[in-house]
Amino acid sequence: MKYERLHTLSREAEMLKGIASLLDWDHETYMPEGSAHFRAKQLKILAGLEHEKLTSDEYTKALSALIDIKTGKLKEKLIASKKRAVELWRRDYLKRICLPKEFVEEFAELASNAVSVWRSAKEKSSFKEFAPILKKIVALCKKKAELVGYKEHPYDALLDDYEPGMTTSEIKTLFDQVKSFSSALIKKQAKIDDSFLTGDFDPEKQLQFCTEILKDMGYDFKYGRVDFSAHPFSSSCHPTDSRITTRKPGRHIMSTIGTLMHEGGHSLYEMNLPAKEYGSPLGQAVSLGMHESQSRFWEIWIGHSKPFWKRYYPELKKLFKQFEKVPLEAFYKAINKVTPSLIRVESDEVTYPLHVILRFELEKGLIEGSIHVDEIPKLWNKKMKELLGVVPKNDAEGCLQDIHWAMGAFGYFPTYALGNLYAAELFDAFTETHKNYAKKIEKEGLLFVTKFLKERVHKYGRQYDSKNLIKKATGKEFSTVPYLRYLDEKY
Amino acid sequence: MKYERLHTLSREAEMLKGIASLLDWDHETYMPEGSAHFRAKQLKILAGLEHEKLTSDEYTKALSALIDIKTGKLKEKLIASKKRAVELWRRDYLKRICLPKEFVEEFAELASNAVSVWRSAKEKSSFKEFAPILKKIVALCKKKAELVGYKEHPYDALLDDYEPGMTTSEIKTLFDQVKSFSSALIKKQAKIDDSFLTGDFDPEKQLQFCTEILKDMGYDFKYGRVDFSAHPFSSSCHPTDSRITTRKPGRHIMSTIGTLMHEGGHSLYEMNLPAKEYGSPLGQAVSLGMHESQSRFWEIWIGHSKPFWKRYYPELKKLFKQFEKVPLEAFYKAINKVTPSLIRVESDEVTYPLHVILRFELEKGLIEGSIHVDEIPKLWNKKMKELLGVVPKNDAEGCLQDIHWAMGAFGYFPTYALGNLYAAELFDAFTETHKNYAKKIEKEGLLFVTKFLKERVHKYGRQYDSKNLIKKATGKEFSTVPYLRYLDEKY
Repeated sequence: MKYERLHTLSREAEMLKGIASLLDWDHETYMPEGSAHFRAKQLKILAGLEHEKLTSDEYTKALSALIDIKTGKLKEKLIASKKRAVELWRRDYLKRICLPKEFVEEFAELASNAVSVWRSAKEKSSFKEFAPILKKIVALCKKKAELVGYKEHPYDALLDDYEPGMTTSEIKTLFDQVKSFSSALIKKQAKIDDSFLTGDFDPEKQLQFCTEILKDMGYDFKYGRVDFSAHPFSSSCHPTDSRITTRKPGRHIMSTIGTLMHEGGHSLYEMNLPAKEYGSPLGQAVSLGMHESQSRFWEIWIGHSKPFWKRYYPELKKLFKQFEKVPLEAFYKAINKVTPSLIRVESDEVTYPLHVILRFELEKGLIEGSIHVDEIPKLWNKKMKELLGVVPKNDAEGCLQDIHWAMGAFGYFPTYALGNLYAAELFDAFTETHKNYAKKIEKEGLLFVTKFLKERVHKYGRQYDSKNLIKKATGKEFSTVPYLRYLDEKY
Repeated sequence: MKYERLHTLSREAEMLKGIASLLDWDHETYMPEGSAHFRAKQLKILAGLEHEKLTSDEYTKALSALIDIKTGKLKEKLIASKKRAVELWRRDYLKRICLPKEFVEEFAELASNAVSVWRSAKEKSSFKEFAPILKKIVALCKKKAELVGYKEHPYDALLDDYEPGMTTSEIKTLFDQVKSFSSALIKKQAKIDDSFLTGDFDPEKQLQFCTEILKDMGYDFKYGRVDFSAHPFSSSCHPTDSRITTRKPGRHIMSTIGTLMHEGGHSLYEMNLPAKEYGSPLGQAVSLGMHESQSRFWEIWIGHSKPFWKRYYPELKKLFKQFEKVPLEAFYKAINKVTPSLIRVESDEVTYPLHVILRFELEKGLIEGSIHVDEIPKLWNKKMKELLGVVPKNDAEGCLQDIHWAMGAFGYFPTYALGNLYAAELFDAFTETHKNYAKKIEKEGLLFVTKFLKERVHKYGRQYDSKNLIKKATGKEFSTVPYLRYLDEKY
C-alpha cells in the first residue's frame, strides 16, 4: 500500500515529464515556428509542476513512509526490486530538492528557447548568434552543479544526471585508452572505394527499406512512428508511445539506414520497459550510456555487420540499381570505411569516439571555467585538427552541429562513448549465447536479437546500475577490453 | 497588482488547457494508435491539474481579493473591460466549483477513450460498438447537469458551456423558425447540374489552391499549419499556435475548399485574440456560436459568394481542366445547389441547419431521458427522413458521422446553427461598412474582410456576451431576420 502510494505520485510526475517530451517532439517536427517562445513557456510550467509534485509535502511523506530520507534506512520489508526502487526514489529525491522550483522552470524555458536560437544560428552558420544564449546555459549548468554538489569536479554533478555514479576522472581514464587506440587505428587504414554509397537514392524507397528493417527489429508501428526533424532523435512518453525522427533522406543512403536503426534501438528499449512499472524506477532506462548501447548495438554491431547484410543486401539491390554491380564484400568494406570526417553522427565507428572526446574536453572546460564560450569555434577547429586531422569550413559543420548544448545537456556526450563500450560487452555475451547468430540472422531475421536485449537489459528498468547490469547481463566486469578487442579484430 | 495576480494564476491554468488541446490535436493527427489508452490518462491528469489550479485556495483568495464571490460585488475600482473580466472569472469559478476534481478527471479520460472507440466503430459502421461507451458519456453529462444546476431544463446546463446564457427553450424557438423556413425552401429548388464538382482533382493542387486562399485570408503559416485528420477541426493553444486539420482531399473539390476556409475562419479568430490578454476572459473567444459565425462567414458568406469566385475562379480554372468549359455562373449555381444529403459537414447552407436541429432534438432527448442510446440509429434515420427526405444506408453515414458525442460535447451542436444566425448579422454590417465589397474582393483580395472581423469581433475577447457583441458589432439586436432574409434572397 505504502509502496503503491509512492508509485502513484511518482507516476503522475512521470506523466508530466512525458507530456513535456511530446511537446519537445512537436517542437522539432510540426510546431509552427512562430510559436517557439510560447512553447518555452509551456515547457517551463510543466517542468515546474513536475518538480512540485516530486518535492511536495505529500511526496516527501509518502517517501518517508518507506525509507528514512536522511539515513537511507528502509522502514518496510520489501522484495529486492522494490527495495532498489525505493532507494532510487530517495536518491532522485535528494538530488531534486537541491534545486529550487524557479531554477527548474528557468532552465526548462531557457533550454527550449536556446534550441530555437541554435536552429536559426546553425542555418546561418553563425556561432555569434548562438553565443549569448549559450553563455546563459553554461551559467545555469554551473549553478546547477553548485546546487547539487559534487566531490571532485563540478562536471561530476552534471554527468550524474545521464550516467548515475560515473565521474569525470573515470571518464577521462576510459577516454584516454580509447583515444590512443583509435588514433593509432586511423593511421593503419587502407584506401577503400565507397563512392557508390553516395548518389540519387529515392527517398521513398530509402524509408521503405528502413521501415522493413524496423519492423524486423520488432519496432511496432502501432506504438510508434517515424517523422522528420533537423536532428534525429527518439522520444518516448510511455512504452505505448515511442517515436523516432530522422533527417529527410538525402544522398547518403547509409546515413538514413544507420540513423533509423540507431533511433530504433533507443525506441525498442523504451517500448520494452515493463509497462506495469511505468512511473517507478523499475520502469525507467538505466542511464543514457545504457540507452546508447542499445542504439549503437543496432546501428553498428548489427547494422554494419556481415551477417546482417547477407540477409538484407539482396533487398537493397532490388530497390537501388546503384548496387547492381557491387559485390557484398565491397559493400561491406565501404560501409565500414574509416575516414576522419566532420560530422559526429555520420562518422565511422573508429573515429566516432574521438568526436565525443572532443566535446567532453570542451564542455568539461566550460563547466570548470578554463574555457570561455567565445573561444569555442577556435578550440573546436583546433581539436578537430589534432584528433581527426580535418577542419570544418564553418560553424554549421563545426561547433554548431549538435543540439545538445542548446538543450542544456552538458554531461550527455560522454554517454555516447560509454554506449559503445557497453554495446561491445553485450555483443560478446550475445555471440556467446547465440554462437550461430550469423546464420540465425540470415535465416530468421532480427527478432531474436531484440529478445536477447529485452531479456538481458530492457526488462530490468533501473533494477541494476550500469556496471551491475553489464555484469548481470554478460557475467563479466565492465571494462574497455571487449570494445578495443572488437575494433582491433574488425579493423 | 491584484488583477495581475489573478491573471497569472488563470494563465497557468489556460496553459494546461492549451497543452491538452495539443494532445488532442496529436491524438487526431499523428499519435500511434496503440497509445490511445495512455493518451486518455495524460488528458485526465491535465484536466485534474487545470481544475485544481482554478479551484485552489490560492486562486479563491486571488479572486476574492477582487470580487465578493457570493454577492458578485466588486472590491476594486476597475475599468470596464477589467470589471467584465473579473465578473467572468467569478462566473466560471462558480460553475467550476460545482464539479469535483475526480469528476473532471473521469470525464476527460472517458471522452478521450470514447473518441478512439468512436473512430473504430465508425470505420466498421457499427453503432453497437459505440453504444456502451456512449451510455457512459450520456450518464456523465446528465450528472454534470445535475452538479452544475439549471432552472428549466438539464440541457441548459450543458448548453451554457458552449453558448453562455442561451437556454434550451430559446434554441427551440429559434430552431422552429429556421426549420419551417428551410423545409419550405428545399421544395422550391430547381434542378442544377453540379456533376463537374466531383471528379479526379489532384490532391496536391487542391491543397495548393486552398493554401493560397488561407494566406489571402491572413492565416499566417508562421503561427499555424494544416494537417490531415478523420474529422476536420481547428485547434489553438495560443494566438501564436493555431492549427487546422482537414480530411485528405478527395473527389469533392468544394469539400476541401469549404472545409479549409471554415477551419481557417476558426483559426483566424484565435490568432487575432489579443495575446497580451492570454489567460484572461479578455483573451478568450465569446462562445462556440460566435466561433462558428467566423467559420461560416468564411465558408459560406465569402466562400460561396459570387464576388469571391470572380476573383478566384480563374485561378481554379488554371489548376483544374475540369472547369475549362464551365462558366462562372454555372459554377456559382452548382456550389450553391440545394440538395438534401446525409453528411452534415458537406451539406448546403439551406439544409445545414436541419442537420443541426436533428442532433439537437436527439441530444436533448438523451439528456432529459426521453430517448435511450440504443434507439439512436432508428430515430436518426426516422428524423432524416422527416426533415431531409433521405435515409442513411448505414451508421457510418448516419448517427456515427460526428465526433462530438464521443468528445462528451453535448450542447455543442446548437452553436453550429447559431453561428449561421450571427454570421448573417455580421455580414449585413459588413456590406453596410463596405458597400463596394464585391469590387473590393475582386481587386484587393480578402484581408479587409479579416480586418473587419478582427475589429468587430476578435479583438474584444469575451468583453461582451454573444448578443451584446452582435449589437455592438452591427448596431442591431440579435434576431433570425437577417439570416432568413439572406436565405430568401439567395434562393
